[in-house]
Amino acid sequence: MAEQGRTRLRKLLRVPAGKAVDLAAHDPRSTPGGPKDKKAGLAAVADMGEHLADLQERLWASSTKGDRRRILLILQGMDTSGKGGTVKHVIGLLNPSGCRIKAFKAPTPEEREHHFLWRVERELPHPGELGIFDRSHYEDVLVGRVRALAPPEEIEQRYTDINRFEQRLVDDRVTVVKCFLHISYEEQRRRLLRRLDRPDKHWKFSPGDIDDRALWPSYQQAYEIAMTRCSTPHAPWHLIPADRKWYRNWAVGHLLLEHLQALDPQYPKPDFDVEECRKRLLEED
Amino acid sequence: MAEQGRTRLRKLLRVPAGKAVDLAAHDPRSTPGGPKDKKAGLAAVADMGEHLADLQERLWASSTKGDRRRILLILQGMDTSGKGGTVKHVIGLLNPSGCRIKAFKAPTPEEREHHFLWRVERELPHPGELGIFDRSHYEDVLVGRVRALAPPEEIEQRYTDINRFEQRLVDDRVTVVKCFLHISYEEQRRRLLRRLDRPDKHWKFSPGDIDDRALWPSYQQAYEIAMTRCSTPHAPWHLIPADRKWYRNWAVGHLLLEHLQALDPQYPKPDFDVEECRKRLLEED
Repeated sequence: MAEQGRTRLRKLLRVPAGKAVDLAAHDPRSTPGGPKDKKAGLAAVADMGEHLADLQERLWASSTKGDRRRILLILQGMDTSGKGGTVKHVIGLLNPSGCRIKAFKAPTPEEREHHFLWRVERELPHPGELGIFDRSHYEDVLVGRVRALAPPEEIEQRYTDINRFEQRLVDDRVTVVKCFLHISYEEQRRRLLRRLDRPDKHWKFSPGDIDDRALWPSYQQAYEIAMTRCSTPHAPWHLIPADRKWYRNWAVGHLLLEHLQALDPQYPKPDFDVEECRKRLLEED
Repeated sequence: MAEQGRTRLRKLLRVPAGKAVDLAAHDPRSTPGGPKDKKAGLAAVADMGEHLADLQERLWASSTKGDRRRILLILQGMDTSGKGGTVKHVIGLLNPSGCRIKAFKAPTPEEREHHFLWRVERELPHPGELGIFDRSHYEDVLVGRVRALAPPEEIEQRYTDINRFEQRLVDDRVTVVKCFLHISYEEQRRRLLRRLDRPDKHWKFSPGDIDDRALWPSYQQAYEIAMTRCSTPHAPWHLIPADRKWYRNWAVGHLLLEHLQALDPQYPKPDFDVEECRKRLLEED
């Protein structure tokens, strides 16, 4: 595949470094660069599975001979934006052995005693793996900012800490793929109502989800600031319109595919004599 | 489904407690209780996916309200017996978010300083999860015994330790599903030769795999002893004929299905007023 095909979508969805993000300028129902409709989108995701799994296996195989490269996919977005659905439908296409998935919840008392990056550090993907964060260290500048869970100067410091942390990851051969799943206020209402309509979805609902909607503008602003300050050349943010689930899945899957293709991992060459081993096996007993 | 359907295969494949295991009496190419041929087997596994994923989601949902139940699947078997393949093809049917997979390698220096169960303890599934061990604490009575990595009296003690440990897990609401993937000496040779034939499989091969074949009888005996001593009523071993990959996948998938059906996890009832929440959302601005 040409280099152009390998970078098309990530260039299209990338939040440019050093430019202020305005979420209102991005339509959550749009489908930039995507298949023409839902049917084509679902088919494209299904087709992606084999390519993703093949490249994932190569990355893993290569790690067995010392290649430290790995991918860290960071999923962020408002409640109901589809972080869990993306894991189910996109990561579900891969070999689960090579995936290290972590859903970050509110920090435990032990975690709160440490620097906010401490718990993140412990969940990083190992060489050859695909790490997936459902929420991440960005929560500490999102809910942390909106609910003033730390003094303003500490929140300020965190953006710098995050950029340095991610730079270190990149230097250590981690490809950091950050995705903001952008849904509309109205779409969140529809999804919350759907959860109420279905008894098998009640467990995903909490009345606090409605209270949180009052903070919607503050959260949007916190996301804008986080992406403006932390979309760096080494670890850019991607803004994924997510009102259409099929587009969201396609886009995240395609971003992963582009990154894996760019890494172009190769099966390692044997460090033993293949012919001699074959002979030994054929001549047994 | 009737209780009979829920326990059929596990009764058939279970290693009876207190009875000496004779592996030579079990044909690795047999397909006990299975679909009639490969085609039917592959179709049956594909059909299983939806049921497995549905029950897995219920188990997870139930855990959000305090249900501590979870499953621990332990996969053991000789090299090339298909532990990794089972994870890929069977666990790959599930939602990766709810799976906690651990492939145990030779213990690190730090792990060796601790009791052999220390590293296992840290990798147990959390409530609502499906834990998968690709190798496990049984390695310490398998390679540990065959290569005399510890004094005989210590190896002896480990069987007792394992039974007590697993009893504690069961008391803590862990369903322990232990599967020995039983392949033949000749089938291992075929699979090793296939790895040599395919450059994309060389990375899975090591000349040491051939040396290890000299220890085949010792390993078979170590497995027999481990299953004889540790197939308990609370945590029985299952002997899975594994020369046919389609049967192996079907059998492990079906065992999981039977256990999940027996647990019969339910979506939790809402602890909030659904109608009031709906009204609040509908009457927003």
